[in-house]
Amino acid sequence: MSTPKIETCLSPALYPYHRNPEAIVVIADILRATTSICNAFDNGALSIIPVGTKDEARRYKDQGYTVAAERDGIKLEFADFGNSPFNFDRATVEAKTIVYSTTNGTHCINLAKDSHQVLAGSFIHLHALAKHIESSGRDLVIFCAGWKNKFNLEDTLFAGALSMLLLDAGTHVTICDATHAALDLWQCAQPKPLAYIQKAAQRDRLRKNGLDDAIPFCMTIGKSTLVPYLDGHELKAMQIHY
Amino acid sequence: MSTPKIETCLSPALYPYHRNPEAIVVIADILRATTSICNAFDNGALSIIPVGTKDEARRYKDQGYTVAAERDGIKLEFADFGNSPFNFDRATVEAKTIVYSTTNGTHCINLAKDSHQVLAGSFIHLHALAKHIESSGRDLVIFCAGWKNKFNLEDTLFAGALSMLLLDAGTHVTICDATHAALDLWQCAQPKPLAYIQKAAQRDRLRKNGLDDAIPFCMTIGKSTLVPYLDGHELKAMQIHY
Repeated sequence: MSTPKIETCLSPALYPYHRNPEAIVVIADILRATTSICNAFDNGALSIIPVGTKDEARRYKDQGYTVAAERDGIKLEFADFGNSPFNFDRATVEAKTIVYSTTNGTHCINLAKDSHQVLAGSFIHLHALAKHIESSGRDLVIFCAGWKNKFNLEDTLFAGALSMLLLDAGTHVTICDATHAALDLWQCAQPKPLAYIQKAAQRDRLRKNGLDDAIPFCMTIGKSTLVPYLDGHELKAMQIHY
Repeated sequence: MSTPKIETCLSPALYPYHRNPEAIVVIADILRATTSICNAFDNGALSIIPVGTKDEARRYKDQGYTVAAERDGIKLEFADFGNSPFNFDRATVEAKTIVYSTTNGTHCINLAKDSHQVLAGSFIHLHALAKHIESSGRDLVIFCAGWKNKFNLEDTLFAGALSMLLLDAGTHVTICDATHAALDLWQCAQPKPLAYIQKAAQRDRLRKNGLDDAIPFCMTIGKSTLVPYLDGHELKAMQIHY
């Protein structure tokens, strides 16, 4: 059996060229969807239902679900709260199923759902995620959600950080130029990825909307041991022991 | 008037998200199409007709044109020579119109042809190209041809090198994450871009076909002062004085 390989997909529009039904796919929408999802599990959420449209989110709200939904940084009037990871605190999410409205995240999940396994990626559970993938023996596609189909820096840095752990562990190899680029950009971002990310366009977008307070949290490697995975139309979390 | 901006498009599949009819578009297929085209002009070619299919190339050959065409590194039987820049020497191309078969290059040209101006990019005329763009007052889209719609390192390094000259000249700015990444990768590749490119997947593909002899030429900043531009269905070259 050949050594499992890492590929990095830099945009949803490029996913068809990286599709691999045998692979684990890690979706990264670091600012902020996948970080918020990981944080919700860390604070005891039971499951997360990602939805793509406002109308779907509203229908779930009408059925009594707790709903996180915003557009352009503004909480939707019917929602319980917006999409910042800080909204998913223990008092709010523990033992609940949360509906999370994310157009791009849901689009990525739909593109990737025919793969072996779909996981949510974030810096807050980076080491647990890497441990799970190391022991899987599976090819990996790191699927950067990007911004409106364009490349973005923060998701690519995450791809570099995750790839570095797997290459260092010796369980995976790569012949993918995008992965090599992500690795080098992750090196460029040392020792302070948060300072590096100042030039990222998404940071400016969040700052304009007063939503940049969560960026340090989103860009910091944390100690969460819970890895969210897709199970049907819901995300659940598995505990990784290492 | 606001300062002209640089965007970098990392794949033909992403071009719709970077389309800008007012911009100059520089197409970069560094290994080897756009470098070969630039070298042909340097050696006195009159014009280049890019064609996308074998059949088109053959029809031009039947009309008496000189045709460069290969598939998977093998010269097509009816062609005069293959696609390496070394095939475009003065004895072969001077004062001639050359038909150049390039599926990806022609696809990129067709995508970009509604922009203000389409140019071919290479390291061999990097400084002349930058001078032309500096004085244009136009937005710039650097259009990396990639490999089968995937990101590649060599075209991205070129994007970084060109962006650096324009930012240093102060004529252009960027708020594009892909351009920031290209700039940092170009820095990573110093002092020897040729050594850096050893990890690029396309280098391996060319090596397997015994076609890697032209890579040092393709990756070296040269002194050509001729910039190829699209004029109808042909590429011609303008002389840049600086």
